[in-house]
Amino acid sequence: MVIMKFKERISQLVKERKSLICVGLDTDPDKIPDHLKSTENPVLEFNKLIIEATSDICVAYKPNSAFYEALGPNGMEILKATITAVPSEVPVIVDAKRGDIGNSSRMYARAVFEYLEGDAVTVSPYLGEDSLAPFFEYKDKFAFVLALTSNPSSQDFQLRNVEGKPLYEIVAENVQKWNKSDNLGLVVGASHPDKIKEMRNISGNLPFLIPGVGAQGGDLEASARFGTDNGKSIALINVSRSVIYASDGVDFAEKAREEVQRLNRELSEFEIF
Amino acid sequence: MVIMKFKERISQLVKERKSLICVGLDTDPDKIPDHLKSTENPVLEFNKLIIEATSDICVAYKPNSAFYEALGPNGMEILKATITAVPSEVPVIVDAKRGDIGNSSRMYARAVFEYLEGDAVTVSPYLGEDSLAPFFEYKDKFAFVLALTSNPSSQDFQLRNVEGKPLYEIVAENVQKWNKSDNLGLVVGASHPDKIKEMRNISGNLPFLIPGVGAQGGDLEASARFGTDNGKSIALINVSRSVIYASDGVDFAEKAREEVQRLNRELSEFEIF
Repeated sequence: MVIMKFKERISQLVKERKSLICVGLDTDPDKIPDHLKSTENPVLEFNKLIIEATSDICVAYKPNSAFYEALGPNGMEILKATITAVPSEVPVIVDAKRGDIGNSSRMYARAVFEYLEGDAVTVSPYLGEDSLAPFFEYKDKFAFVLALTSNPSSQDFQLRNVEGKPLYEIVAENVQKWNKSDNLGLVVGASHPDKIKEMRNISGNLPFLIPGVGAQGGDLEASARFGTDNGKSIALINVSRSVIYASDGVDFAEKAREEVQRLNRELSEFEIF
Repeated sequence: MVIMKFKERISQLVKERKSLICVGLDTDPDKIPDHLKSTENPVLEFNKLIIEATSDICVAYKPNSAFYEALGPNGMEILKATITAVPSEVPVIVDAKRGDIGNSSRMYARAVFEYLEGDAVTVSPYLGEDSLAPFFEYKDKFAFVLALTSNPSSQDFQLRNVEGKPLYEIVAENVQKWNKSDNLGLVVGASHPDKIKEMRNISGNLPFLIPGVGAQGGDLEASARFGTDNGKSIALINVSRSVIYASDGVDFAEKAREEVQRLNRELSEFEIF
């Protein structure tokens, strides 16, 4: 059996499902519907039901490590069990924003790829290439490097002028140079639609992970059209809160499915598949 | 009882113990002495013995989260148990290099300060102020923001020219602005002695955490003199591998103590206390 790499798996799912939607599993125990709160493991139960309801219509999942770490002693086990609950055909991006000197990054990569068995990871570029190489060296895995994020304070550093270009462009250029194993991509926030276009122009064919649509107010059409360069490149659009908390009642999983279907219908209007 | 804040606690320990040494607990199961490998929890056993042997002569501990995450299911519990094993008078810095949008950083802060009960944390600045504010808002806790790191690839972004200054200076200036609760400091790598001096000049009184002495080859004297501005500011010098792996035999804890004592003696020659 030939094992497909992350990028090929995503490409195939995008074509088959006519979707770019990555479901963000940022599960906050305070926001879980009441009827699940008495179960043995409410967060895992919630995640399993969301996954069951959506795994045939989305193209990836992205659990955010922060939400699991905050759970305390069993957080990492719940994260691992969540990843295990995703059907094998759908890739999982561990959203971890890691980045440390090489010695330490090797340990983070081991945690994400070997213990958690994630297919991809998000990493933070501040320490430069040698801090990210331990992730890149897993050639069958994939890493999305933060370039331009969707929060207002992205202007503090990412938008600053570095030798004539914004810092996020310098990051994007470096990631292209580092991409020797064709397993790197960029995180580009949806709150900057004009910049997604600009970024696509300077980033060649690098896959984009685009957070910020939904609760954070990003523009779906701009993200999809500019992110994929009208269907020529890979762009995953991550949606978390507006899908997983589409309802706080017993119908939460059904409503989550309806929200992904609604997003897929909207995407279908842009003629990018 | 008045609870002293991190900065005051460090100041007092520095004076009392005439030390700047922070012991980095980057415990790699492969490097644990053979006689501990058959114990129930070798990493925790190793850490407890290192702590027992050094907790009266150092001023802080810094476990690196990466090494515990790489352990798998019980990693976070071992990290928490390690932090609990440190006598209450010695502060613990959780080296986590976290940084994400506010919603997620709040969860990371909860994990580090509430579940793990760390006294301080290291954070990564790429996403800007709102990504770090959830850490800063724990006013009795402390956060060291990465400015200039000790790895060769720090040149990829940190040393780039941003509007006439290197990016790490822009970070240092911002951290001073953000420091409304007097609970922020900077990470400044020991492999750049001239830059530690420059950084002290532009960073006012911000405490420094200086990694890179020991296995990474940084200069103890320059780190101590420039980092503390000859005793006028706080600088913690982190030493990991050269202390905790000073011996791989049954005498590892004794040798770790001797190495901290040796470093303290060397520090005593610089007339900074």
